Amino acid sequence: MNPLVIAIDSSTTATKAIVVDTEGKVLALGRQDIDLLSPQQGFGEHDPRQWWTSTHDAVAQALAQLTPSEKERIAAFGITHQRESFAPFAADGTPLRNGILWLDIRAADQVQRYGTPEIHALSGRPADVTPGLYKMAWLKENEPESLAKADKVTTVSAYIAFCLTGKWVDSAACADSLSLSNIKTLEYDDGLLEIAGVRREQMADLVKPGQVLGTLEKSIAEEWGIGEIPIVAGCGDGQAAGVGAAAVTPDVAYLNMGTAVVAGVPSAEYRYEKLFRTEAAGVPDTYVLELVQNSGAYLSGWFRRAFGKPELAGAPDPELEALAAARTPGSGGLVTMPYWGAVQSPHWDPIARGAIVGWRGTHGKGSMYRSILEGISLEMARSLRKLAESTGVELTTVRAMGGGLRSPLWRQIMTDAIGLPITGCEEEEISALGAAVIAMASTGVFGGDDVATAARKMARFTDVTEPNMANHEIYNELSAIQDRLYENLRETNARLHEFSRKHPDAELTGGEG
Amino acid sequence: MNPLVIAIDSSTTATKAIVVDTEGKVLALGRQDIDLLSPQQGFGEHDPRQWWTSTHDAVAQALAQLTPSEKERIAAFGITHQRESFAPFAADGTPLRNGILWLDIRAADQVQRYGTPEIHALSGRPADVTPGLYKMAWLKENEPESLAKADKVTTVSAYIAFCLTGKWVDSAACADSLSLSNIKTLEYDDGLLEIAGVRREQMADLVKPGQVLGTLEKSIAEEWGIGEIPIVAGCGDGQAAGVGAAAVTPDVAYLNMGTAVVAGVPSAEYRYEKLFRTEAAGVPDTYVLELVQNSGAYLSGWFRRAFGKPELAGAPDPELEALAAARTPGSGGLVTMPYWGAVQSPHWDPIARGAIVGWRGTHGKGSMYRSILEGISLEMARSLRKLAESTGVELTTVRAMGGGLRSPLWRQIMTDAIGLPITGCEEEEISALGAAVIAMASTGVFGGDDVATAARKMARFTDVTEPNMANHEIYNELSAIQDRLYENLRETNARLHEFSRKHPDAELTGGEG
Repeated sequence: MNPLVIAIDSSTTATKAIVVDTEGKVLALGRQDIDLLSPQQGFGEHDPRQWWTSTHDAVAQALAQLTPSEKERIAAFGITHQRESFAPFAADGTPLRNGILWLDIRAADQVQRYGTPEIHALSGRPADVTPGLYKMAWLKENEPESLAKADKVTTVSAYIAFCLTGKWVDSAACADSLSLSNIKTLEYDDGLLEIAGVRREQMADLVKPGQVLGTLEKSIAEEWGIGEIPIVAGCGDGQAAGVGAAAVTPDVAYLNMGTAVVAGVPSAEYRYEKLFRTEAAGVPDTYVLELVQNSGAYLSGWFRRAFGKPELAGAPDPELEALAAARTPGSGGLVTMPYWGAVQSPHWDPIARGAIVGWRGTHGKGSMYRSILEGISLEMARSLRKLAESTGVELTTVRAMGGGLRSPLWRQIMTDAIGLPITGCEEEEISALGAAVIAMASTGVFGGDDVATAARKMARFTDVTEPNMANHEIYNELSAIQDRLYENLRETNARLHEFSRKHPDAELTGGEG
Repeated sequence: MNPLVIAIDSSTTATKAIVVDTEGKVLALGRQDIDLLSPQQGFGEHDPRQWWTSTHDAVAQALAQLTPSEKERIAAFGITHQRESFAPFAADGTPLRNGILWLDIRAADQVQRYGTPEIHALSGRPADVTPGLYKMAWLKENEPESLAKADKVTTVSAYIAFCLTGKWVDSAACADSLSLSNIKTLEYDDGLLEIAGVRREQMADLVKPGQVLGTLEKSIAEEWGIGEIPIVAGCGDGQAAGVGAAAVTPDVAYLNMGTAVVAGVPSAEYRYEKLFRTEAAGVPDTYVLELVQNSGAYLSGWFRRAFGKPELAGAPDPELEALAAARTPGSGGLVTMPYWGAVQSPHWDPIARGAIVGWRGTHGKGSMYRSILEGISLEMARSLRKLAESTGVELTTVRAMGGGLRSPLWRQIMTDAIGLPITGCEEEEISALGAAVIAMASTGVFGGDDVATAARKMARFTDVTEPNMANHEIYNELSAIQDRLYENLRETNARLHEFSRKHPDAELTGGEG
């Protein structure tokens, strides 16, 4: 028995499909873009049909790279996806409006009215514009018919599963991101459903990650030239990245240096705290405590778009990296509060804004770029330390992924800020690999169906970056200064929030972070 | 009687000489650069012999443009100069070391040890690195022989007067900038001399502005082909600019939008307050209350050097101006604390640093540049308002000069921030014109020797910029936010000051502001 699995990751920009073997090697890759729609400033939507068409075409593209005997070995299909996004559907899968995405910020008002510490405790998610809950409440108030008429209101995952199997079934570790579930029981909560304005029968049925959602429809199986394989319940893309990095014990963190910077550690028990949000993990009956900073690589990309060479249009610039690398840690006293896209961990404050403090005439472009990279990294390092203090388990290992790893400077700054070695993950489609791990575990090839065991067998790593502990000490000093900025600037941020509502302006678009 | 006068302005970068008629028209201009020396970071020095050679050559250059009959009409010679700078000399005028300039920041430690509110009250000058006092104290402690051996320790003005007349005489409105004088009596103060480590007999004799310092040496007069004319006591370049703009009543402010942004209003009585520094005015027996922000055009130039097109090397860039002009006031919630070169008015805090607060992804290069121009302007507008509250005289007129006027954007932002029309002064060498006014008054051509009368006759204006009062209201909102930043960031600045002492770095040079 030498099975292969297909796994897809349907993200904000594209659906990626990979075919993976039991060693975690990717044999084939397909990718189909999805159009991001923004009918108003701050709105972010998808045509849900593209969730399926991009999945179908990406899988077909990957399968076309296989030999017939490889196709025969395909034993299961795993799913991961952009979390928190949802759409309303008719029973036959016809979308009743566009899907509303996690990055859509229209529901700021609903977050203020409905968001409470109690909802955080119940759902694992701090009040924030990203979960589906508040955007469903927005629909309830602004477009009541889209929800009322729907037979189903589901995640991206559930809709893709419906298209694959004909059944409305979702993974509990996918649906939790809507913030409609009691995260301790992983069942929908009536109070949350009421706030959202949806009925329990409109929700997909839930199974645990690793369980079978259904069987691949015969017509699709025939078209793809594979068997009628089981479609396996996965988890959200954040948790899936942790599975792909085999971050399955509480002393091991995964760190995704992507557009957002996201890190997490597994937890056997449910915990919640303002610092992090709590997810149902890909390993059934466990949790992931997840730190989220929306202004990650987004922010370095913003700098390059705003201040870089126009001909590069925001692409990485080795000259700029060199300028920043030539500076000393802290650039002689410049510190950045990286809240360009507001702040999630650790403050969860939608009106917080970015700040760069400490300017002297000795600073330049390299200083500012470095300060931005440091600002992101110091905040994450501090949050990881606070997270370890909260769980009582000291971190020993950090496993990193995401486009940010391609910047040796940012990777070294992050390593120095955290003060622990950072191990790179080999697979770029790390969330899809996580979904593949869960699917592979379900085949029993490793004996039993333990996801953690499968993750350890299938995760593949590259190089390790060692921290410069002298720089780590300097960064601890700078971090203590940065740690006070949020309180020091709270009043200014609140007043600038009011000012910008009265007197809006936007030089760059796509700036919601 | 249709006299002409020569006036020189010996500044940090060059000595400029102009020949002026009774209507303030400049008939001839000469200019000779002076080499800025920086033997250590933060040190700023001149070879004092260049104060004289540049004066000699600039005057000769201007005179060469005159007809013989014009030369015959020359009736007096006026002097203005960079304030606060000084050098020690032998009795024959041989310099004993380089001159130490106002922009030299070596004496920060002495400022902390000796600077007191009492010295401010006595000398008119808040504790700051610029006055000669603290740098003489530095010499006393670090190079005692340079002061002890000197026959004279004088301003730029007194040294040039010595070279012209053979006598060590200075204007009281030039010498006051050393911070060795009791500004009420305009006589040297024994306590201040003791702190500086100089003796009263080492000081130049003092006369009031408009009085005669001495007569031009015969040999020089012959060389230049002019008469043995009186050399007339002038005043420092800041006050001289006010005279050149005919800002001679307390409801009229001059506003110099130069490297530093400096504004002042006349005052018949001596007043002092933390907000401003008090100067002996060019109009005898009166004062100028002067607001100083070192980070003026320096700061917009810094931005262009750091973030602008490399091929422009910091020169003004119409494209950048257009980007910034396309933004709305406040750029949708971005506010700058412009303390790149620490802060003088209104806080006089040498460890304050710059900050830009309120960043969102919608901001860009134009937003940042605009925010910097706004940050400078809002602070000056607020200080002018506080100054008017302090004197009880409402401003009616602002007369502006300096390179910043060449930026229509900055000029409009400044006008909108202040909320009063800004009138441009025609003459670029406005400080030299002020010295010419004082020299012309002394000829009696206007009847008597009243400097204010002469100023009104000779000042020449160009266009007037009208404030957009809707923008003024918006700027008042932003100004209230900016006004709180210094307190909000005081702790952060103090900690960054310590951080940068321990971990220095400098991407750009010439960055002391």
